[in-house]
Amino acid sequence: MVKAAEKQDSRRSFLRDSALAGGGLLAFEAGAAGLAADTAPAASSNEVIRTIRGLRTIHGNFLDKPVPEAALQTILQASLRTANASNNQSYSIIVIKDRGMMGRVCGYKGGCLLLYCADYNRMKASAESLGHEYDPGTMESFVTAAINTVLAAQTAVIAARSLGVDSLLTNGIHRGDMERLWTLLDLPQTHCFPIIALVLGYPTEEPAVLKGRLDGAGVIHNEKYHRLTKEEAEEITREYDDKQRHLAMNDNWGGEGYKHYLDWYFKAWVGEPAKARTEETQMLRRLKRSGFVELQKV
Amino acid sequence: MVKAAEKQDSRRSFLRDSALAGGGLLAFEAGAAGLAADTAPAASSNEVIRTIRGLRTIHGNFLDKPVPEAALQTILQASLRTANASNNQSYSIIVIKDRGMMGRVCGYKGGCLLLYCADYNRMKASAESLGHEYDPGTMESFVTAAINTVLAAQTAVIAARSLGVDSLLTNGIHRGDMERLWTLLDLPQTHCFPIIALVLGYPTEEPAVLKGRLDGAGVIHNEKYHRLTKEEAEEITREYDDKQRHLAMNDNWGGEGYKHYLDWYFKAWVGEPAKARTEETQMLRRLKRSGFVELQKV
Repeated sequence: MVKAAEKQDSRRSFLRDSALAGGGLLAFEAGAAGLAADTAPAASSNEVIRTIRGLRTIHGNFLDKPVPEAALQTILQASLRTANASNNQSYSIIVIKDRGMMGRVCGYKGGCLLLYCADYNRMKASAESLGHEYDPGTMESFVTAAINTVLAAQTAVIAARSLGVDSLLTNGIHRGDMERLWTLLDLPQTHCFPIIALVLGYPTEEPAVLKGRLDGAGVIHNEKYHRLTKEEAEEITREYDDKQRHLAMNDNWGGEGYKHYLDWYFKAWVGEPAKARTEETQMLRRLKRSGFVELQKV
Repeated sequence: MVKAAEKQDSRRSFLRDSALAGGGLLAFEAGAAGLAADTAPAASSNEVIRTIRGLRTIHGNFLDKPVPEAALQTILQASLRTANASNNQSYSIIVIKDRGMMGRVCGYKGGCLLLYCADYNRMKASAESLGHEYDPGTMESFVTAAINTVLAAQTAVIAARSLGVDSLLTNGIHRGDMERLWTLLDLPQTHCFPIIALVLGYPTEEPAVLKGRLDGAGVIHNEKYHRLTKEEAEEITREYDDKQRHLAMNDNWGGEGYKHYLDWYFKAWVGEPAKARTEETQMLRRLKRSGFVELQKV
């Protein structure tokens, strides 16, 4: 079995190389609440809250076992129930069951992959069918559709967990050459943009730990924005260093010569500062090409 | 009581004028599934799925009644359990209980407002505290943080509903002059961006209908993207026109002289085509000002 540190290292290399690999990059971490059951308020005792507290991310170690069709349909129908702006459902969900394709699309294979795309092409087809001019080509349209899309994806995550189906949310789709997505899946060149991939399935083994979360200053603000004090920033450094809190992506920063987890995070994990850039990210370039950056072409 | 058509009309005017008003714009529509209980797959029978099917949007008619503190804390802790990229929690949640402030921020008042912002400032403070250079100023950083943020918001919606607390997701924050948000809430000028507002509370009356959803071609795709045929586009026009499906935002398009709901939608509801624009949307302008569009300043 690959050890956690090695796995972490390969995730980092993947990020750095911007090449598509089979394992574990920038996955969205989830875990059960740090809250002990006996400290939770009485209001919390229901099945939905327990399901949410039990959410955890499966980092690529999914069994080669499909999600049953009835469960998949229930998950999709649940996902569609999510609120969306003007009820225009400006998204597409591409259901991918071919494991080879899952890997090429997002770097992971599971029981099933749901690719959530911000998408105005259904509405464009409706407008064309009725003879109306329609052009949703602005950053505002993109952000609104992306919100619709991501809200729907999270409902699917929670619905799946309630049915015993685990998940991995990953933006692996945005690594490597993103153009592959348009080629592999025949996506429309404009006004359709893949936002998040949701791999569903069953883990080969239970996750060793459940991740913790910061829940104080710098995350939750009361009435107005609160800027961190020096003391609060130092406290957060200590929180990340506390291995019992499980906030870190790995526990090996000491072995790699870093004093604090956040030293490792900023020096080894995060890429170059944006101000050092001389070229656009492919995200911005592709958004322009997709027609979502008004007044700009590529 | 304000009739639906009048309310709809005021929503449209609001949008057109880009001024901040008290009622009902671009709210995110939610309702119960069109699925009859007896046609749902057996796998679906659990409390989580039932809760999701019962999601509905309260369009501003919230009682002046606060959300109990225990419920609010349970909702916030649930929200934080959501998966997020690299477990860096690149968001801030501003909890607003002052009803006047709720209205000024998003155009609605309820029991409580959670403003979900994509935000790297906590991490910037950590980096500064430890002497590291850190600059998340790219469109890629923005999209990644926005995804984290919206996933967390939807978990809050579902957790709230399970506790008997209803909700409205609204991008009313992006209407009118967005700069008010920075002023009212003292938001950091860079690398913090309000994404979605979640109003929580109790409705003055139950919603009259539960909205329907499209769930076929143009929304769900199998293995690859499927472009709508002419026949499928025409079928979608008929689906929107079927008042039993509750897909439309209002049922008054006939009275306003439109043959189909989608005629009303494209002619009366949607704004000018993006290609007619001579100026950037304030969304793009503000993203530049917030430092999220690499290589560009305003």
